[in-house]
Amino acid sequence: MDPVIILVEPQMGENIGMAARAMANFGVTDLRLVRPRDGWPSEKARNASGRADHVIEKTEVFETLEEAVADLEMLYATTARQRGMLKPVHHPVEAAQGMRHITNRGGKVGVLFGRERWGLNNEEIALSNVILTLPVDPDFSSLNIAQAVLIICYEWRMSGDEREAALPFSEPDLPRASKEDMVRLFEHLESALDETNFFRPPEKRSHMVQNLRNILQKGDWATQEVRTLRGVIASLQRYHERKQD
Amino acid sequence: MDPVIILVEPQMGENIGMAARAMANFGVTDLRLVRPRDGWPSEKARNASGRADHVIEKTEVFETLEEAVADLEMLYATTARQRGMLKPVHHPVEAAQGMRHITNRGGKVGVLFGRERWGLNNEEIALSNVILTLPVDPDFSSLNIAQAVLIICYEWRMSGDEREAALPFSEPDLPRASKEDMVRLFEHLESALDETNFFRPPEKRSHMVQNLRNILQKGDWATQEVRTLRGVIASLQRYHERKQD
Repeated sequence: MDPVIILVEPQMGENIGMAARAMANFGVTDLRLVRPRDGWPSEKARNASGRADHVIEKTEVFETLEEAVADLEMLYATTARQRGMLKPVHHPVEAAQGMRHITNRGGKVGVLFGRERWGLNNEEIALSNVILTLPVDPDFSSLNIAQAVLIICYEWRMSGDEREAALPFSEPDLPRASKEDMVRLFEHLESALDETNFFRPPEKRSHMVQNLRNILQKGDWATQEVRTLRGVIASLQRYHERKQD
Repeated sequence: MDPVIILVEPQMGENIGMAARAMANFGVTDLRLVRPRDGWPSEKARNASGRADHVIEKTEVFETLEEAVADLEMLYATTARQRGMLKPVHHPVEAAQGMRHITNRGGKVGVLFGRERWGLNNEEIALSNVILTLPVDPDFSSLNIAQAVLIICYEWRMSGDEREAALPFSEPDLPRASKEDMVRLFEHLESALDETNFFRPPEKRSHMVQNLRNILQKGDWATQEVRTLRGVIASLQRYHERKQD
């Protein structure tokens, strides 16, 4: 059970669509609208949703906020302004964890987002249990509703189990070069450099070799990458050989 | 020193503006563009930036990605797709922490974002040190560039010191009601309920009082709120008194 996202009197269809797109990216799909200004369904919303049709199609519309939240056990109100109400104020991380506690035992939670122009009124916030706000720069605090929805849904997903918070892909699981591969690479390069009299004066050779090996070691290469590098060295050697012809 | 945000061949001015707005909310202000399709400056970008003029005005434009990243020590490439390159793949949290390590000792880092339609090409990713991706739903992965910029800048701010990651406001610091206030409230309510014969049968009174006190205790009220509740009880008592007249 994911949280329900409730937009109160959203004005622009584009913002509803962008909110749906933000939700879908993080696996949240229950969207409710209270008196959307331009009605519903909305072509602008659908176009801005980035094909989040599964969210747009099951979006529910309500006449009052009370009806929209009737089945919820815990309601978070997002606001960028202090309201002088003695309600707990939560960070997105804290809020996501709090929501998980409730949904894990089968409870239903929602997050309220206000109008583009002026947010939620105090009566709407009074219906909520917790104030949810974002750690924005106090000198520039101007998130739009779809941006706020995005951060909350992202933190919701991050608060989930490992499977949910997992990245869609990870580093390719190529075998890392063995020490044997690396030593062969070192020796190949060193013998090539011996031929070109790179190590001068000779008494500095061992120190220079040590530096080179440290440099190459940092690469943390796969077997295939070491093979490529040996090809590079061989090719440069042939250049040198050709020059000698 | 904050990370530099680099948009490669952005197509829509609106997306550049929304990216600037996202950045400004989290205190990130260095934006670079590589060959923006519709040129620069862009009225559409400025209009979509939510008055992030300080970001828009110092945005720099480059002809090549190489020039745009020349002064950076570490470059992160955002991508939603596996690329078959043996580069580390970081989570936004991990990436933000990695960036802090570098900036804390004076290094400069950047994050690359690709074109709206098809992201970054492999050559551009090859210039980067780390692949940065988001834990999106594998069944619906469709973040636009401004949304991706928003999440990265949010995590950047979250990875900062306490002052940076702080919420712009917190719960009002009203004095919590003392136990004395609470006991007076309990006794006030109980004596009012005694008058209305609420506690019946009398042998259950102590158990009922205990329940009531547990219920009220949960409120975790401020002194002022307890005062309001005592006014409520007093008012209900007067109603009762009037009825008896």
